[in-house]
Amino acid sequence: MSTPSAVRWHDGKLLILDQRQLPGVVEYLEIDDVQGGWDAINTLAVRGAPAIGIAAGYTLVVAMAAEGRDLEAKPGQFLAQLEQYATHLESARPTAVNLSWAVRRICERAKRSANLDAIREEAEHIHEEDRAICRAIGVNGRELIKPGNGVLTHCNAGALAVSELGTATAPLYLNHQQGMPFRVYVDETRPLLQGARLTAWELSEAGMDVTLICDNMAASLMAESKIDLVIVGTDRVTRNGDVINKIGTLNLAILCAHYGIPFYVACPSSTYDPETKFGHEVTIEQRDPSEVLGESAARVPVHNPAFDVTPVNLVSAIITDRGIARPPLAVALERLLIENND
Amino acid sequence: MSTPSAVRWHDGKLLILDQRQLPGVVEYLEIDDVQGGWDAINTLAVRGAPAIGIAAGYTLVVAMAAEGRDLEAKPGQFLAQLEQYATHLESARPTAVNLSWAVRRICERAKRSANLDAIREEAEHIHEEDRAICRAIGVNGRELIKPGNGVLTHCNAGALAVSELGTATAPLYLNHQQGMPFRVYVDETRPLLQGARLTAWELSEAGMDVTLICDNMAASLMAESKIDLVIVGTDRVTRNGDVINKIGTLNLAILCAHYGIPFYVACPSSTYDPETKFGHEVTIEQRDPSEVLGESAARVPVHNPAFDVTPVNLVSAIITDRGIARPPLAVALERLLIENND
Repeated sequence: MSTPSAVRWHDGKLLILDQRQLPGVVEYLEIDDVQGGWDAINTLAVRGAPAIGIAAGYTLVVAMAAEGRDLEAKPGQFLAQLEQYATHLESARPTAVNLSWAVRRICERAKRSANLDAIREEAEHIHEEDRAICRAIGVNGRELIKPGNGVLTHCNAGALAVSELGTATAPLYLNHQQGMPFRVYVDETRPLLQGARLTAWELSEAGMDVTLICDNMAASLMAESKIDLVIVGTDRVTRNGDVINKIGTLNLAILCAHYGIPFYVACPSSTYDPETKFGHEVTIEQRDPSEVLGESAARVPVHNPAFDVTPVNLVSAIITDRGIARPPLAVALERLLIENND
Repeated sequence: MSTPSAVRWHDGKLLILDQRQLPGVVEYLEIDDVQGGWDAINTLAVRGAPAIGIAAGYTLVVAMAAEGRDLEAKPGQFLAQLEQYATHLESARPTAVNLSWAVRRICERAKRSANLDAIREEAEHIHEEDRAICRAIGVNGRELIKPGNGVLTHCNAGALAVSELGTATAPLYLNHQQGMPFRVYVDETRPLLQGARLTAWELSEAGMDVTLICDNMAASLMAESKIDLVIVGTDRVTRNGDVINKIGTLNLAILCAHYGIPFYVACPSSTYDPETKFGHEVTIEQRDPSEVLGESAARVPVHNPAFDVTPVNLVSAIITDRGIARPPLAVALERLLIENND
């Protein structure tokens, strides 16, 4: 029983868990050149914004290491080669902000010291920072779970998307490591089934008491008093405290309000977007109908939004690496994430 | 564009739509002996309580017809042969109340007149009664839908489960036949996808404007004011007005209450069960985990209830063949379905 990792880095070796094959096959891909990293990112072997950034950083390290130490003697050539790899890697998922952010961080570091040790250190920093953020979310959120609780989560905001503790899952991992007994219900999360394929798998692997449900079963569990709290991740929190997250999140928040169950959102403070005032200003991506239709040959139109917007009044608290924001959330988030930002 | 039928009866020929192959393949199985009917019922080529009853009635007719007119001259042998077929047919789905009910009705009729015309007439009566009930539900419920409305439904309470208008779908079919424009959103209905495979298909075939969604998308559509009403079927309505229906129904009822959207339930008056006081007294069947896990090789425990209980306070009205019951529902149902029962 151990916490699965999306990215493993040991002794100069980069291993990426091939999430496309989960949960049927657990296989780590060894990445030893830039094309290997590009393929893994492009084909979603690794997914989740932070995990992509971490994988990209290490990919540049192994790719440059393969060029040999000789290049360190020629800083201009070193930088040119790194830049070429970096540009290529960024093209693997052009819209993934974290990919570009991590790749550019490595390049900036190389500009100050064009050698392998420096960029390896930077890649390790990126990884370590993410780990520390997840740990802080876990430490801040752990008190919200009590022994014997039933906790419901949605989609995958776990170790497979981030680093080893995940965001929404960090309080679960920390309490579980301390031996606290509780049960986690995992929404399968249609249409892509990240809950069934990833979250249920990773929490089970870590030895937790996991029960998988279909998304439409949450209400009946709540009616039977089996859910004490819900914790989800988020892709963006707007200035007023609205939460943009995987489709189905709003549904859970409404059920929680109906049954008087706390609805918690966990995220790194970087997810807070004070530039956007309200959730409804965010354009929701419509995804391909084939994700819903699958093998079904029904030729009907499909509505397939990737995310929904949970209004701030349905959110009980937001757990961040800097502390827990409680209502009134707009005020609490500003105090926690902007005013203390120095 | 035509309304699909689960069972077709024409000129002494029995055709059963093979629902296992929908929506990819539309194939009618010709049933000409008792074993053919048994197989169709047992393997769920035909499903839905009323449709099973209708199919069983006609199966006995074609099976007895194959014995030839000579048997009519020997009433004892006729009855013995019919009883043998009837008993066998009942074993196809021993818990399906409608199957046994229809088969016994045919046998009782034969006891009064042991000939082919009599049992054919009885089978046609069973079919016609069901058709009339669906039509009455449609007539009573049609006023609830206005031009341009967005209507959400769940699972399959349509023509494929009942007779040609269905129950929850009857008001839709009638208004559509009158040329009223409206849009139907269909929940895919995990885990067995009856919405995606059956309802979306049958309403599209009938020419309606249908959009398929995943079960967890209803809240976001309601938040965007795209849903004006929800109509679902039900397996049982208890004396107090609680509604037992496909898992996910309770979820929709809570969302409707949150957004102030009417939540309607449509059913034949036979679905009313005044012997059971409250919904929570009904034992909810737990189904096999494999329905949820599918090809996913996750070895996690699964919670897979077939139904949930929607409490009466979340139900806006119940549309029956005898009229619409409105809150207070316990009183209205009793008045409509018991007091007028003579």
